[in-house]
Amino acid sequence: MSLGDGAEAGAAAWIAADWGTSGLRVWRMRGGAAQEARASADGMGALTPDGFEPALLTLIEDWLPPGRRTLVLVCGMAGARQGWVEAPYVPVPCAPADPAAATPAPCADPRLSVRILPGLSQAAPHADVMRGEETQLAGLLAARPDFDGVVCLPGTHGKWVHVSAGEAVSFLTCMTGELFALLSDASVLRHGLTGAGFEEAAFLEGVEAAMDRPQSFSARLFTIRAEGLLNGLSPDAARARLSGLLIGLELAAAKPWWLGRPVAIIGAPALSARYEAALRAQGAEARAEDGGDLTLRGLIAAHDALQKG
Amino acid sequence: MSLGDGAEAGAAAWIAADWGTSGLRVWRMRGGAAQEARASADGMGALTPDGFEPALLTLIEDWLPPGRRTLVLVCGMAGARQGWVEAPYVPVPCAPADPAAATPAPCADPRLSVRILPGLSQAAPHADVMRGEETQLAGLLAARPDFDGVVCLPGTHGKWVHVSAGEAVSFLTCMTGELFALLSDASVLRHGLTGAGFEEAAFLEGVEAAMDRPQSFSARLFTIRAEGLLNGLSPDAARARLSGLLIGLELAAAKPWWLGRPVAIIGAPALSARYEAALRAQGAEARAEDGGDLTLRGLIAAHDALQKG
Repeated sequence: MSLGDGAEAGAAAWIAADWGTSGLRVWRMRGGAAQEARASADGMGALTPDGFEPALLTLIEDWLPPGRRTLVLVCGMAGARQGWVEAPYVPVPCAPADPAAATPAPCADPRLSVRILPGLSQAAPHADVMRGEETQLAGLLAARPDFDGVVCLPGTHGKWVHVSAGEAVSFLTCMTGELFALLSDASVLRHGLTGAGFEEAAFLEGVEAAMDRPQSFSARLFTIRAEGLLNGLSPDAARARLSGLLIGLELAAAKPWWLGRPVAIIGAPALSARYEAALRAQGAEARAEDGGDLTLRGLIAAHDALQKG
Repeated sequence: MSLGDGAEAGAAAWIAADWGTSGLRVWRMRGGAAQEARASADGMGALTPDGFEPALLTLIEDWLPPGRRTLVLVCGMAGARQGWVEAPYVPVPCAPADPAAATPAPCADPRLSVRILPGLSQAAPHADVMRGEETQLAGLLAARPDFDGVVCLPGTHGKWVHVSAGEAVSFLTCMTGELFALLSDASVLRHGLTGAGFEEAAFLEGVEAAMDRPQSFSARLFTIRAEGLLNGLSPDAARARLSGLLIGLELAAAKPWWLGRPVAIIGAPALSARYEAALRAQGAEARAEDGGDLTLRGLIAAHDALQKG
């Protein structure tokens, strides 16, 4: 197998790929520089194992020089059991996104050499898994190799990761984003959540309420509906309170992670700002990271390690 | 308006109707006896205000004697703001399903006299509403007028009601059933919940876990997924644990209601049995009621009160 330097104009030296449940992003790379980015909606969730190679070729075929194999380094759900090929989890504590543990994916096209980075697993104190976020952690560590603290990655399945000495030590997943989507799109609460506004004060009240009395969580959810009917609670306040209750419940669960440790928040700016505000209201030392695309940085770091290894 | 005795064969003296979000049930009545029952899928959720009278007539037109108005006594979501006509809530403390507070619904057909029973509302200690369950409470009180304790009505929006001296004193709603449906049908957990089996031990562990550490609720949800991937957690155990976590969280919220008071559980038998087992594991004095159709009994009690009034 030849992994050439791809000096042809428009050809890739290697390709970075972030393959999530709902989409695929690829970058044409030369060393550590991204020369072009493309994306499609061909996420893992919409593909059978046979569909991955064609979906990838649709995006990158014209980047492939003829006559040799080009490395495509993939992170994310393409490595799930229901994905292209299962890339087994690496148990913590470990360095995130270790390319030496990557799994080759079967390809018919002789121009492709696809390797899928492993996710992380944890057996104790509770069973947990991540797939994709480990590459963002690798990106953070590439920029800040001495980082020692907790990384908060808000999202569909929000993660809290204790990082020390270049390794992920332990982590916790909360279903905050998925619960918010289900409750605001498909539950009885949707009637009172029209529009997209957001009342900061109602958000922080929700955070406080959930942290104070987490046992009342599913009862407080219904008060959003009742206050809409009885007291005319506005959609902007209702949406913010729902977000606050969910993020407050997450902070209550993650308290052993963030208490007394600096917290770096990695995520979409608006959502990261909510977590930052909620954590600071609890007296935590939290900062939303503005590190650009940490997934791409993590893929580049993994590629660097592969070249050196 | 003439409310005759409907002595014609096949004609109704009056009609009882339970009109929920997803369906409509009607009974042809003579005094306190149901002579025939019918049902349709024309729930409030599928109707605009103009659609209620035709949907009702489709089921009951041949029960209506000509030349006079027949009373149709309705409970449930037909009285919601998005329903046929809004039947304003009556604030607790009050007797449930008071027919004196029923709201007439506009009808074009001169054979119809429709009255919708009011739901209950609560302003403090938290805002809350119910619509439909109050009629089940009236049914329970018809059978057990001296009942003093707590009524637990598991379901989509489960209710806990303190009942004393023939009145609903205070209540609490938890979104347990709706969360279970959303999480088992539409979340990432669905992959591990195939089938319909149920492991009692996993259920009680889930209850205990949620009551002990309610703050870990949304984190524990994700462990169902992680244990499926890492440890082969069976679908039967996963489904039972999800149910246990949700019911445990509800019991934690409702503890001020059930602690030290006898609990009567009114609901579908299988679900009531789960609540009974969970409450007894907490040392509570709980009993699943086997009172037949308490909604119908409540409608009959309301009709009796109307006749006497």
